[in-house]
Amino acid sequence: MTQAYNFSIDRLGKCSVPSPINLSKTQDQCMAKFVTDELSVIYNVKIKSDNLTRSYNKENLLEMAGPREMIYFDPLKLHAAIVTCGGLCPGINDVIRSIVMCLWHHYGVRRISGIEFGYRGFLPEFRFPVVDLTPEKVVNIHKMGGTILGTSRGGGEQTAEIVDTLERMNLNVVFIIGGDGTQKGALAITKEVKKRNLKISVIGIPKTIDNDLGFVQKSFGFETAVSAAVSAVSGAHTEAHDSINGIGLVKVMGRESGFIAAHTALAMNDVNYVLIPEVPFDLEGANGLLRHLQHRLRIRNHAMILVAEGAGQNHLQETGLKDVSGNKTLADIGLFLKTTISEFFKSKKTEVNIKYIDPSYIIRSAHANPSDSIFCARLGNNAVHAALSGRTGAMISLINNQYVHVPLELVVSKRNKVDPESSLWRDVVSLTGQPALMTNKRF
Amino acid sequence: MTQAYNFSIDRLGKCSVPSPINLSKTQDQCMAKFVTDELSVIYNVKIKSDNLTRSYNKENLLEMAGPREMIYFDPLKLHAAIVTCGGLCPGINDVIRSIVMCLWHHYGVRRISGIEFGYRGFLPEFRFPVVDLTPEKVVNIHKMGGTILGTSRGGGEQTAEIVDTLERMNLNVVFIIGGDGTQKGALAITKEVKKRNLKISVIGIPKTIDNDLGFVQKSFGFETAVSAAVSAVSGAHTEAHDSINGIGLVKVMGRESGFIAAHTALAMNDVNYVLIPEVPFDLEGANGLLRHLQHRLRIRNHAMILVAEGAGQNHLQETGLKDVSGNKTLADIGLFLKTTISEFFKSKKTEVNIKYIDPSYIIRSAHANPSDSIFCARLGNNAVHAALSGRTGAMISLINNQYVHVPLELVVSKRNKVDPESSLWRDVVSLTGQPALMTNKRF
Amino acid sequence: MTQAYNFSIDRLGKCSVPSPINLSKTQDQCMAKFVTDELSVIYNVKIKSDNLTRSYNKENLLEMAGPREMIYFDPLKLHAAIVTCGGLCPGINDVIRSIVMCLWHHYGVRRISGIEFGYRGFLPEFRFPVVDLTPEKVVNIHKMGGTILGTSRGGGEQTAEIVDTLERMNLNVVFIIGGDGTQKGALAITKEVKKRNLKISVIGIPKTIDNDLGFVQKSFGFETAVSAAVSAVSGAHTEAHDSINGIGLVKVMGRESGFIAAHTALAMNDVNYVLIPEVPFDLEGANGLLRHLQHRLRIRNHAMILVAEGAGQNHLQETGLKDVSGNKTLADIGLFLKTTISEFFKSKKTEVNIKYIDPSYIIRSAHANPSDSIFCARLGNNAVHAALSGRTGAMISLINNQYVHVPLELVVSKRNKVDPESSLWRDVVSLTGQPALMTNKRF
Amino acid sequence: MTQAYNFSIDRLGKCSVPSPINLSKTQDQCMAKFVTDELSVIYNVKIKSDNLTRSYNKENLLEMAGPREMIYFDPLKLHAAIVTCGGLCPGINDVIRSIVMCLWHHYGVRRISGIEFGYRGFLPEFRFPVVDLTPEKVVNIHKMGGTILGTSRGGGEQTAEIVDTLERMNLNVVFIIGGDGTQKGALAITKEVKKRNLKISVIGIPKTIDNDLGFVQKSFGFETAVSAAVSAVSGAHTEAHDSINGIGLVKVMGRESGFIAAHTALAMNDVNYVLIPEVPFDLEGANGLLRHLQHRLRIRNHAMILVAEGAGQNHLQETGLKDVSGNKTLADIGLFLKTTISEFFKSKKTEVNIKYIDPSYIIRSAHANPSDSIFCARLGNNAVHAALSGRTGAMISLINNQYVHVPLELVVSKRNKVDPESSLWRDVVSLTGQPALMTNKRF
Repeated sequence: MTQAYNFSIDRLGKCSVPSPINLSKTQDQCMAKFVTDELSVIYNVKIKSDNLTRSYNKENLLEMAGPREMIYFDPLKLHAAIVTCGGLCPGINDVIRSIVMCLWHHYGVRRISGIEFGYRGFLPEFRFPVVDLTPEKVVNIHKMGGTILGTSRGGGEQTAEIVDTLERMNLNVVFIIGGDGTQKGALAITKEVKKRNLKISVIGIPKTIDNDLGFVQKSFGFETAVSAAVSAVSGAHTEAHDSINGIGLVKVMGRESGFIAAHTALAMNDVNYVLIPEVPFDLEGANGLLRHLQHRLRIRNHAMILVAEGAGQNHLQETGLKDVSGNKTLADIGLFLKTTISEFFKSKKTEVNIKYIDPSYIIRSAHANPSDSIFCARLGNNAVHAALSGRTGAMISLINNQYVHVPLELVVSKRNKVDPESSLWRDVVSLTGQPALMTNKRF
Repeated sequence: MTQAYNFSIDRLGKCSVPSPINLSKTQDQCMAKFVTDELSVIYNVKIKSDNLTRSYNKENLLEMAGPREMIYFDPLKLHAAIVTCGGLCPGINDVIRSIVMCLWHHYGVRRISGIEFGYRGFLPEFRFPVVDLTPEKVVNIHKMGGTILGTSRGGGEQTAEIVDTLERMNLNVVFIIGGDGTQKGALAITKEVKKRNLKISVIGIPKTIDNDLGFVQKSFGFETAVSAAVSAVSGAHTEAHDSINGIGLVKVMGRESGFIAAHTALAMNDVNYVLIPEVPFDLEGANGLLRHLQHRLRIRNHAMILVAEGAGQNHLQETGLKDVSGNKTLADIGLFLKTTISEFFKSKKTEVNIKYIDPSYIIRSAHANPSDSIFCARLGNNAVHAALSGRTGAMISLINNQYVHVPLELVVSKRNKVDPESSLWRDVVSLTGQPALMTNKRF
Repeated sequence: MTQAYNFSIDRLGKCSVPSPINLSKTQDQCMAKFVTDELSVIYNVKIKSDNLTRSYNKENLLEMAGPREMIYFDPLKLHAAIVTCGGLCPGINDVIRSIVMCLWHHYGVRRISGIEFGYRGFLPEFRFPVVDLTPEKVVNIHKMGGTILGTSRGGGEQTAEIVDTLERMNLNVVFIIGGDGTQKGALAITKEVKKRNLKISVIGIPKTIDNDLGFVQKSFGFETAVSAAVSAVSGAHTEAHDSINGIGLVKVMGRESGFIAAHTALAMNDVNYVLIPEVPFDLEGANGLLRHLQHRLRIRNHAMILVAEGAGQNHLQETGLKDVSGNKTLADIGLFLKTTISEFFKSKKTEVNIKYIDPSYIIRSAHANPSDSIFCARLGNNAVHAALSGRTGAMISLINNQYVHVPLELVVSKRNKVDPESSLWRDVVSLTGQPALMTNKRF
Repeated sequence: MTQAYNFSIDRLGKCSVPSPINLSKTQDQCMAKFVTDELSVIYNVKIKSDNLTRSYNKENLLEMAGPREMIYFDPLKLHAAIVTCGGLCPGINDVIRSIVMCLWHHYGVRRISGIEFGYRGFLPEFRFPVVDLTPEKVVNIHKMGGTILGTSRGGGEQTAEIVDTLERMNLNVVFIIGGDGTQKGALAITKEVKKRNLKISVIGIPKTIDNDLGFVQKSFGFETAVSAAVSAVSGAHTEAHDSINGIGLVKVMGRESGFIAAHTALAMNDVNYVLIPEVPFDLEGANGLLRHLQHRLRIRNHAMILVAEGAGQNHLQETGLKDVSGNKTLADIGLFLKTTISEFFKSKKTEVNIKYIDPSYIIRSAHANPSDSIFCARLGNNAVHAALSGRTGAMISLINNQYVHVPLELVVSKRNKVDPESSLWRDVVSLTGQPALMTNKRF
């Protein structure tokens, strides 16, 4: 359960510049105050009560994020850049806005560059112009979905060219908003920067609509995405319920992690079967999905299936394709299930009405709901504080409701997945009433 | 920072009934599994990294919630009741639904009674009928705001009469959904039940739209409430922005804790001054609200103030009144500010257009958003598991994203308030740009 | 422009029963009043001002709907049925609710039967039970999408069997909610009822999410559907805008009429090309879609296409299939365009990112927005008034903002289509900036 | 029922400039086409079918709006201005956006000035700067509520000074967005312009959240406002329903016309009493509101009252005050009812829980829903076509679903009010179940 790692975050140098922010340094003044470097946050909070004698250890701690009294960079001479990579996710504009506002209004930074279309924006061959980011430019962007900087997949593996551009642009700080692949790129950039002995802070902000990044309590935009998924499932449920032997089938995002599917089912109460990448299932056989479905239609006349895009890949032929980020192109489990179920009932001479919805981009292009907006605003603020204090190779994260710095090495070391033995999956099984495991042989 | 308390939860007796729920008992079966009694959750996760030698101690631990392999009650002979007390809050119906569904479908309980209109529903003189709760009755209630059981303030102090009714109804389990006052009542009931040597489990579920209950990471309905508040503030901001010297003024809930105001401001980006009960402010003087407002209008032509109902009570005459729950009736800070600001600018011969909105009940009567729905569903589930395993005098709560049992004694021992020295308030001050403290004399 | 038809609505007999509704019969009492049979509504309001000498004529008039002072049926002896046919549409439950409430509370009718799953529910072989409809049952159904009665396609052609069932059930009134095919069935039923000399009133309520029924100003649910479509298009636009050469492509409902597409484009401002069944377009050639698209990407880097499902069928191979209602199964224009565009740009060696969304059922399963709710409530009320006054073979409709009776013969005589020469299409062309006609040869 | 007026719209001169818009001039080309001047729209569509011999007459006709083949102004030399007056309303930014986009992209106009803060923006003493309006500036404004130009009351009576400014700015076209008072100002400006023999087109666009302007089928923003009101009423209903003898009381806009209240009640189904300015009601007596309320509480335990701000003013003392637009300041009927009802039940020794909501500005500051957005976009387009063709002293309106020109003289000649004898009010009475008239003596 516990995981050993080194909590120390890399720093560019000694902090000798007083922070221009006006906060309290002492207690009990009814005022917000600076964070001291000694503060840490316990990562793993579960413990067996018969094992209390062991002492706290560094491996289980993460550095607390927040503004420091003394900072590393002189804000007036600072040049910062922001880049957004990978797929869209609700809240990216909120993060951009927050970074720009905090840099500008709190630290007085005046040179903030937006890099267009992800890592590719750093590469000369694409010739994307750099965008000047000012408070006026970003003041209302959080009311729109997407990212004003545009995004793309790929480009992150050209580390040397990217760092060449960082040098050429005289950048001191780079904020990199993206998921697992993106943060791997950020780590490579950090190392290259270090090798060249440059004083450039690389700060990651975790963006993953699938919630599949490690060391992130919940990724921004996730709640908004679940809300959008709930609408789609609600529609499919209505369709299924109001048809003769209606079967609602909705595919949601989740290549390797079924969090969107699991949470959507918990929010909905109308889903009967949740299929996620982490839990195998059989189609045929006494304990397979098709028999369970057939049984349910017999007694209830309608059924609702929610499937994450990465679920049941063993049932599909490998496509063998990869997208430009290097992610495997998945075969379409939604269409596969639609066909398989349809044929099964045809063979049983039972009329069924399958209503398949693939909400796809609708889920990720929404603008952030208030809860996600708050989260994004605070992530952005803390990213700025981290950068200004000279941290590098760190990602800002929320762990146990505390904002912390997580070393990029740690971030890319594991993915976040639905643990079938966790209370989350237990509550999904409990609320849907689906079999605890739909396989014919226990393993 | 650390707080000493005894983590042990009262139990009615030995668990000798096998749980009817079908979960795994062993690891690595890709299946949800039971929770063992030894599992605990660390409450306070902040630690100074120079202080790592101290060992974990029981005072900082809370018992993990969840289904047990062996339970105390025989579900087939169980009679459970649900009561909802105090003001409305998004998600109450979700909790009711979840409790009924879990009792009925997972444990097979068939006698579930709904008590109408809060604690008063237990009192014979009010003659409210008892409602039979079944899956059919609750299946769609989560789509509506409010509580199907109705609610009221007061009645909780008549402990003996309530326990008389519990006895008379042969109840084994009572689920009590409510805030601070309600949980105090639940504690009194627990003690009276114990005194009479009855085998009745009393389980609290925390409901407080103000998020002001201790030992609760975030109360259900809070996010939904913030969303509703955001709409109101958004309206006032539009009005202020589009008028000559427009001043938007919105009052939100928050008698003793300013969480709704703080979070709304973070979600909005358009609020300039947030006034909460926890942070004092002056009206007059060089560092008072009025001067700051005057200055802002001069340079920006509009301003937005967000005030929690309990803020600045020192500026108001005490009303001396109490409501039926015994809560002090607060004087209306919203109307007071509206008048004060209006007169100030009249005296300065400056035309201002004040747009005052008191969204009041709109905020708390909404139905829960998906995120709150999930939370409610899981709270309800865990409350049922706690009761069936014979816990009593316990409240279900979420701490560091883990569902736990909190002793009622602990729950009522402190309120949750916005800590002005916390990162939350720091981010509010930072995002609004308001002075760190609007008082003329530092204290 | 003018169309000749006979405005008279069939009546079952003389109205000799006083209406139990308490309304005024005279003017100027500040009270709602009964409608007299002489009132008519002009259908075609466009006129050339040089042609004013012609007199009003009966062919251009429709009978005004509403409660009559004297009615035909004795409400206390009445047995009414409601059936919902065809695809889902926001607001069906509102209509059901309104019919039941008006029958029950205003006329005192106590026997109201719900027929399940459309016309098939009348057919003995399907053995669907009849649902007893009461105010308690329908009080909250308008908060849910779909229809509580369920629906299906087909069955309407078995006229004799249906009328057998009407006789067997001793029904006096049948309310039939459905689209073009359904109303054709209703007309056949009316004729069969007349042939058998039965006193059964057949009243249609127009339901068509495509807004393609003639003599209907705007069909209920249409606005809600457009709102849902706007969300999908908004998502696709964000995706397209934020990608390198992003092309958003959304398919919306509209088999024969492009109203949803046209209105969505007007509401959005971000659509560049709207393709509807009524306006032909070429793909290839100097004035074809592909060239225009290529040009736009060159200058603007992104584009947004909105296509109605029935558009451009000439480009597709006929599927030759029909669904159970007898509607031609359309080939999928959305997937066809996705492939065609993709291959075109591949051949031009241009990287494009196509983001295709098919929101399908999401659009039609929503619950009605307030505006549609109002419309449904009033349609239902007027349907009841029509039935009670002994009208038959009539559909309730809104024409020039007046509720009227339209003979079913008239209803099924023409479909409503987007007139490319109308101001609606003109405004679409104007707002999107798309070419007035994307064909290579004017015809 | 019929009203005599002269349909002719004033024109600045002969149209000799070919329109730069590319539309068809002939029929049957599957293309949008120009509107000819001869086309008119019948205003009053209700007719007694025994009176069909009378011929159409000019008094009942309105000129059809839309683009003309020949226009009056040379777009390249045109200077246009837009001003927004009075209170906020959803959709103003949509109208501004549409006017700017149509002027710029379709006619090629490049000088478009925004006048800030209403008519006052024309007056030199206020020294508001003029805003340059371009497509870039307005492209996303429809996503925000309010008006980017700001607004204010008053100033419109200073006709000469305003026209001085028009002359000084060399304006050719002024678009005036506002309600009754504003359009009166527009009429005065039109006359002054004519007196000075200037070639300035004055075009009004009707904006009234109360829907109280004559010759307007439904004002823009009205539907959105009703949706917002529905939310507030829904909240109050939930509160009332879930309390002991709960009474929900909501005040909505509607100074002289109760349309918002009437439509909200129709959309809601949960309102029991709708009080509007057009229908008198008594408080006391056997048929007064209080007795009806008492009776309802006895049998149903809760009640919901919806009151328009202008209702029941006879029960209140005149305030004698006027606001800066010259509108009477109304006494607060909401607070009055709250107090009156409260005291009535106190005197009856009945516990009641009154939940009063005054959503006020929340209702009018929302951004337009899709349906209103479409309407606004088309109003703006048609306003531009009217101006370019040299019309003046005209307002753009929608009558019987056709866009028309209405002479300003006509617009200001009558207000739109809820007719208690209309089907609208009949359906309100029917759906709420409230007494047809709550007065003790018929009058």
